[in-house]
Amino acid sequence: MDTIAQRPGKSAHAAEPTDGPITLDELKMAYRCPGTPLEALRYDITPTGLHYQVVHFEIPSTNETDWSLRIGGHVKRPVSLRLADLGAWEERTQPVTLECAGNGRALLSPRPVSAAWLGGGVSTASWSGVRLREVLASAGPRDGAVEVAFSGTDEGIQGGERQVYARSLPLDVAMGPDALLAYRMNGEPLPPQHGYPLRLVVPGWYGMASVKWLDRIEVLQRPFEGFQNSVAYRYQSDADDPGWPVREMRVKSLMWLPSTVEFLSERRVLEAGPTTIIGRAWSGHGPVVKVEVAVDGVWRPARLHAPDGHAATTAWQSWSFEWQADPGDHELRCRATDASGDIQPIEPPWNYQGMGNNAVQRLQVEVR
Amino acid sequence: MDTIAQRPGKSAHAAEPTDGPITLDELKMAYRCPGTPLEALRYDITPTGLHYQVVHFEIPSTNETDWSLRIGGHVKRPVSLRLADLGAWEERTQPVTLECAGNGRALLSPRPVSAAWLGGGVSTASWSGVRLREVLASAGPRDGAVEVAFSGTDEGIQGGERQVYARSLPLDVAMGPDALLAYRMNGEPLPPQHGYPLRLVVPGWYGMASVKWLDRIEVLQRPFEGFQNSVAYRYQSDADDPGWPVREMRVKSLMWLPSTVEFLSERRVLEAGPTTIIGRAWSGHGPVVKVEVAVDGVWRPARLHAPDGHAATTAWQSWSFEWQADPGDHELRCRATDASGDIQPIEPPWNYQGMGNNAVQRLQVEVR
Repeated sequence: MDTIAQRPGKSAHAAEPTDGPITLDELKMAYRCPGTPLEALRYDITPTGLHYQVVHFEIPSTNETDWSLRIGGHVKRPVSLRLADLGAWEERTQPVTLECAGNGRALLSPRPVSAAWLGGGVSTASWSGVRLREVLASAGPRDGAVEVAFSGTDEGIQGGERQVYARSLPLDVAMGPDALLAYRMNGEPLPPQHGYPLRLVVPGWYGMASVKWLDRIEVLQRPFEGFQNSVAYRYQSDADDPGWPVREMRVKSLMWLPSTVEFLSERRVLEAGPTTIIGRAWSGHGPVVKVEVAVDGVWRPARLHAPDGHAATTAWQSWSFEWQADPGDHELRCRATDASGDIQPIEPPWNYQGMGNNAVQRLQVEVR
Repeated sequence: MDTIAQRPGKSAHAAEPTDGPITLDELKMAYRCPGTPLEALRYDITPTGLHYQVVHFEIPSTNETDWSLRIGGHVKRPVSLRLADLGAWEERTQPVTLECAGNGRALLSPRPVSAAWLGGGVSTASWSGVRLREVLASAGPRDGAVEVAFSGTDEGIQGGERQVYARSLPLDVAMGPDALLAYRMNGEPLPPQHGYPLRLVVPGWYGMASVKWLDRIEVLQRPFEGFQNSVAYRYQSDADDPGWPVREMRVKSLMWLPSTVEFLSERRVLEAGPTTIIGRAWSGHGPVVKVEVAVDGVWRPARLHAPDGHAATTAWQSWSFEWQADPGDHELRCRATDASGDIQPIEPPWNYQGMGNNAVQRLQVEVR
């Protein structure tokens, strides 16, 4: 089998970070990569169509008849599988929270110019498929394997290079218990925009790892150096910094409260009195153990709802906070802490590509 | 029954049209109101989740248990219906193309500041429900009825006024053969963002008429003067012009071709040789009778595919154009003509709110 291309890349973004106005490219990306609105935090499972979606190039017209999944590289038995062949393994369904690594990028200053996420790049779906490790085991990674590369049928140009979208996982993550080869989302065959006919779903990792329209898996004896690993999706201090790779999701939380919203500005107005703030919290470094809410700077604990078994490690956790809203302008913030002791920062952690912004959310509310 | 509020409004948009940079409010609206990517023109029926969506305020948490549809006003028998009660009428399923009246607004100069649609605000779904006229007939509009107002459970602030979203139809359109009370989209219960549990679908009209989260219908003896009729969704020359109401969709077409797309810029690169441009065309003023494509300014007829019976009047028509692509930079345009003789303009028809922009699409392609 020919190998998945490993090209040394150029810059992931076309322009330097800026405090200037939003560009046409950023507006185009907002339309190409829609997010989940805050009010959808009310759902344990984000309804199909409200799940955020990242399409780097275009949605490919992959059809199941012509498609197959090839597994090769440093394995004992290269295999090629049709969708029906996946029936050989036990089906598994699990709720998984995915977040785009660039979520919250547009809240940074200066702002890296790419998908200008304001915060909606996170959602939870119920994914069904088979365990990646079981399928990989059938091909038999050989001694010396260190990583597994995954590529999709989507092809485009980035950093001046023509490429298919490809990302890798360390072998231990690929052979871990949670990574899925998923063929259903919320009980239905994958929609075209979410990777039909098959995609990878890697719980705990930012979304770039969950390769869509997956048709090739290659077991590697050395770290993968494809564009999306070695150039894009890195924490860098500047364009020349090799930086370090984006991997697991940093601990984060989001909130919403019933209010009256203004068209266009999204200004929120609320009647004085008791109200329930609801939210979700998640982390790729362990279960969320604490959520706090600050009203005008005073932090108080929120009530963390009991997670639903396994979901605690793969899906966001629900929380709520009872607020006695007094008339006036208020700023609400929320902050989660995970089992590893990580806590959300108050100010955004800046980096050159705008990755992993897990700063606390700020919500302005006018109470009347 | 208390009446659906008819408030004299202020301006629909918060700012004057501008040639300035894209604003944060416009970016927010792009995330709140996602569109359909051009490559989805390949589908007769836009897959759920790729259908454009307009949410003026927030998606309400309407649930079927508490919900009912009240029909009142100038009728013989006011009625209140639960979803199951709609089983009394014959179910009807039809493909319907809906387009946001503001689609293409961001291509205008100066640009009205609202949802900054670049062109993706049009899609086609298969809607199932019952005919509006049959349900209305059960309430019995009385002599003297001229319009029917519809309102949803979504409430917010626009033009400085707190309001529920409400729009009207002339009685003859409401009692026409095509308007549906729809409870399924593409075979599934309506997703929350598309109006669960019930919405109006008015084929041929811009999307603002197809009221979502519908829970009230009121038959009126005089024209409805709610905000979305009398202030928003009007063709105006300036802020003081009363203008005229937005109604049926103007004739329009869109195209797409297989090519390699660049991340962020959406620049398209194509190999020289024969290629098939595909597209869709639609009009609220009759079937599309002609589509033409211009390569670098030379117009040639496209092949209009035979419409599928009734769909010709409610859904977009498919068309294609065989192109022998020569190396170089090219501009592609497409233009539809409908049975009423209307043809798409080359230059955008400007108006103060950026409504009904049906100018021909321009697509730049680099052929190598």
